[in-house]
Amino acid sequence: MFTVAELAARVGGEVHGDAHLALKGAATLDAAGPDQLAFFGDPRYRKAFEATAAGAVLVPRSLGGVPGRTVVAVDVPQVAFARLLPLFHPEQRPPAGIREGAFVDPSASVDATATVFPGAYVAAGASVGPRSVLHPGAFVGEGAQVGADSTLHPNVVIRERCLVGDRVILHAGVVIGADGFGFAFDPSVPAHVKIPQVGIARVEDDVEIGANSCVDRATTGETVVGRGTKIDNLVQLAHNVRVGPLSILCAQAGVSGSTELGAGVLLAGQVGVVGHIRVGDRARIGAQSGVAHDVEEGATLSGTPAVPHREWLRNAAAMGQLATLVKEVRALRRRVTELEESRDGDG
Amino acid sequence: MFTVAELAARVGGEVHGDAHLALKGAATLDAAGPDQLAFFGDPRYRKAFEATAAGAVLVPRSLGGVPGRTVVAVDVPQVAFARLLPLFHPEQRPPAGIREGAFVDPSASVDATATVFPGAYVAAGASVGPRSVLHPGAFVGEGAQVGADSTLHPNVVIRERCLVGDRVILHAGVVIGADGFGFAFDPSVPAHVKIPQVGIARVEDDVEIGANSCVDRATTGETVVGRGTKIDNLVQLAHNVRVGPLSILCAQAGVSGSTELGAGVLLAGQVGVVGHIRVGDRARIGAQSGVAHDVEEGATLSGTPAVPHREWLRNAAAMGQLATLVKEVRALRRRVTELEESRDGDG
Amino acid sequence: MFTVAELAARVGGEVHGDAHLALKGAATLDAAGPDQLAFFGDPRYRKAFEATAAGAVLVPRSLGGVPGRTVVAVDVPQVAFARLLPLFHPEQRPPAGIREGAFVDPSASVDATATVFPGAYVAAGASVGPRSVLHPGAFVGEGAQVGADSTLHPNVVIRERCLVGDRVILHAGVVIGADGFGFAFDPSVPAHVKIPQVGIARVEDDVEIGANSCVDRATTGETVVGRGTKIDNLVQLAHNVRVGPLSILCAQAGVSGSTELGAGVLLAGQVGVVGHIRVGDRARIGAQSGVAHDVEEGATLSGTPAVPHREWLRNAAAMGQLATLVKEVRALRRRVTELEESRDGDG
Repeated sequence: MFTVAELAARVGGEVHGDAHLALKGAATLDAAGPDQLAFFGDPRYRKAFEATAAGAVLVPRSLGGVPGRTVVAVDVPQVAFARLLPLFHPEQRPPAGIREGAFVDPSASVDATATVFPGAYVAAGASVGPRSVLHPGAFVGEGAQVGADSTLHPNVVIRERCLVGDRVILHAGVVIGADGFGFAFDPSVPAHVKIPQVGIARVEDDVEIGANSCVDRATTGETVVGRGTKIDNLVQLAHNVRVGPLSILCAQAGVSGSTELGAGVLLAGQVGVVGHIRVGDRARIGAQSGVAHDVEEGATLSGTPAVPHREWLRNAAAMGQLATLVKEVRALRRRVTELEESRDGDG
Repeated sequence: MFTVAELAARVGGEVHGDAHLALKGAATLDAAGPDQLAFFGDPRYRKAFEATAAGAVLVPRSLGGVPGRTVVAVDVPQVAFARLLPLFHPEQRPPAGIREGAFVDPSASVDATATVFPGAYVAAGASVGPRSVLHPGAFVGEGAQVGADSTLHPNVVIRERCLVGDRVILHAGVVIGADGFGFAFDPSVPAHVKIPQVGIARVEDDVEIGANSCVDRATTGETVVGRGTKIDNLVQLAHNVRVGPLSILCAQAGVSGSTELGAGVLLAGQVGVVGHIRVGDRARIGAQSGVAHDVEEGATLSGTPAVPHREWLRNAAAMGQLATLVKEVRALRRRVTELEESRDGDG
Repeated sequence: MFTVAELAARVGGEVHGDAHLALKGAATLDAAGPDQLAFFGDPRYRKAFEATAAGAVLVPRSLGGVPGRTVVAVDVPQVAFARLLPLFHPEQRPPAGIREGAFVDPSASVDATATVFPGAYVAAGASVGPRSVLHPGAFVGEGAQVGADSTLHPNVVIRERCLVGDRVILHAGVVIGADGFGFAFDPSVPAHVKIPQVGIARVEDDVEIGANSCVDRATTGETVVGRGTKIDNLVQLAHNVRVGPLSILCAQAGVSGSTELGAGVLLAGQVGVVGHIRVGDRARIGAQSGVAHDVEEGATLSGTPAVPHREWLRNAAAMGQLATLVKEVRALRRRVTELEESRDGDG
């Protein structure tokens, strides 16, 4: 139980209404009851805000007080909500230690405050930092390093020599550092000859990667996922890709080899990006788009091949008229021919 | 070995021909031999039916007897085939019990008739119902529940508190209940602040989910896969998605957050559906389509953005003429200009 | 350390320049230093070749000697590079043997020279050939066979009775032989009745499959990945698919049931191929394309639905003019109507 005043203090908010009200949970505007906290950030949800049964609501400072309601005015309601929600759902860190049934090579270094569950595996020369947790089936390869406060959910695989920073969350089934997809075709055999992938993958601090996503190791050098970037499930990052900090890559997106995404880039779901290009900072790519060329900073693209979003909308609308257009052009051609004949007849 | 009469009895079929014939297997019309059962349901396979060497064939009741052939007339031949095929390939349930090398928390409840293989893990407070099988590397998190007669293939992960019903089949590498992809951007840091995903994922009875597919847990509340729905490999269901009963989601399809699919919906391969929409009962979405708006019950859509399938076919055909069309419009413009000049010259 | 002469001898190359120079590594033209080997195969990288600090460079025979440079003339520089790179990064095979914590059924057959890591599982009647390596969490099901010199990275799953050849590399999380996606709808329940998938999946020699990719088992018969084919991450091959030898399937591509890909086929990233068709030898399908019909040998297709690549390029360009085109046709219609009126007025 937290009073509205206590909650407001934690996020630098200003209370309008009953500061002493005790809350015991948090939920959306629709679902929250009188002992719960909700948030109202997007003006589109005004009706839900007006109708909510929530005991208190986080609102933008611009809104200020609301008669008959207890509100907490903050800079960004959703951010404040995200920071307060864990209070009501405290995560229990598992007790530290290497559990029986975990496999830790004698030459590996596992911090005394880390947890290694049964069925997890830490190979020779690998290291796991303070308070990190390796769930069952997690694998840390030879010489790989995991920083502090990171979580490897069940069956995460980090291949040899790869680097994972602090406060990283890798969801179940993530594979870091599988071999990049590189072959040279030898027509004399014939065979696709494997190009050894001797580089690594590096995942910087505060990154989160969704279930069953893959970040391949570099041919030489590094594949990099930049600080604070968040990646959804089933995403593919090929060898030598570099993703800048604070980017967002939605589910099932794929980025081909050696492409560089800038800072704060957004790839929506199922986007594909070809290899060897650069997507500029803060570029936003619409769902299912196919990006085949460099993208400028701040651009918003959609479609395959991707074009500026407004243009794509226009084309998509025009597309709906395409069949009609074909008919119309055919009709026009007849009419023009007729006009020409009539003129020539006149002539 | 089963006689045709025995087989017919099990599916309520009517034998025309040799009811005493003993069969020892089942195969397709093309592949079946004289001691095998086949089925003929789709009229397109009539030639294969006429040419088959199968000892007996399941046929629709409307067809009735066929001179010189042993047939079993049933309501739906393919269904009857599906029900009879297991007779020839009896699945051996592994012996019940918790094998040495399995990890079961003392506070977990595993039914005495369930099987837990070495390397599987059942966490504190979790429960596994009668006759369910956890293959090596399967993980059932804290307080998660698995019903009766369900199968978790190797390396399936069910995160804490998630619910899996009866007769559910989860193929290798499936992840149920990974955190939904939810962040609030705090420009003052800057950082994407994680929104705790405190809900669960619930998989109802008779669901089957393909290898390496992901069903994320809800932000709050539940992500739901409805009774009898079948999901193929590498499919992504985001937080708070609800899939109605008896739907079919083909490989690599993805559904974004809070979207609701009705009953009996079909998503073909690689379809993407945006968040916060509703796809009506029995809607059918063509392969690779991108659905950005609510879909009516029973609609058949294709394309990105998805439009009625007939329209998409027309557009796709017109698309092939687009380059020609551009040229033609250019030619028409010249001819019209000429006509105008000639008229004005006349004037 | 290897001399240029030693390296040249291993790939049948001809040295121009300092054959005694000792090299201790290999890198790209950009990154290589004076004690490293690089390669120059693609004329587009001529500037990088001219500027490189590499001690020696593999070049095409047609180039021959280059004044002031040490070069090794070979048939295909990239192939020679791929063959030489491992010399500088020798892979250490782990010591043979079944490690403590590995689970091997007494009736399984594991060659004495194979390595089975802790947490790997070999089921009853399965076999693992000489020098193959099963990393932690790898699973070989009942009666499945793995040949010689193959590598199963962590958490690879090979289901019962499936066959994996020699020198096969399966990356982390690969699933071979999950049930194909086959159901018969029984309206009388209603239910999707599972069609037992009693066939297998067979992976031929020298295949490599990327992380978290899936190859389903056949309904009856075999799903086949042909000799020397290379498959990237998160790829889906459905039941009864047959992929010919030496094909290349890029990340997130998907092939539906019973489709046959010929020899040397290339599917770029995120391609989808419908079921029951044939894609001819050496066909090349562009990224994100959707293939709905048979493809001729050697064809190059793009788009959804896929059309010849040149046509797709023309259409994509025309697409950009579509909105303009609609306006123009509207204008033309007005002008033609005016001309008609003016003619009729004249008449």
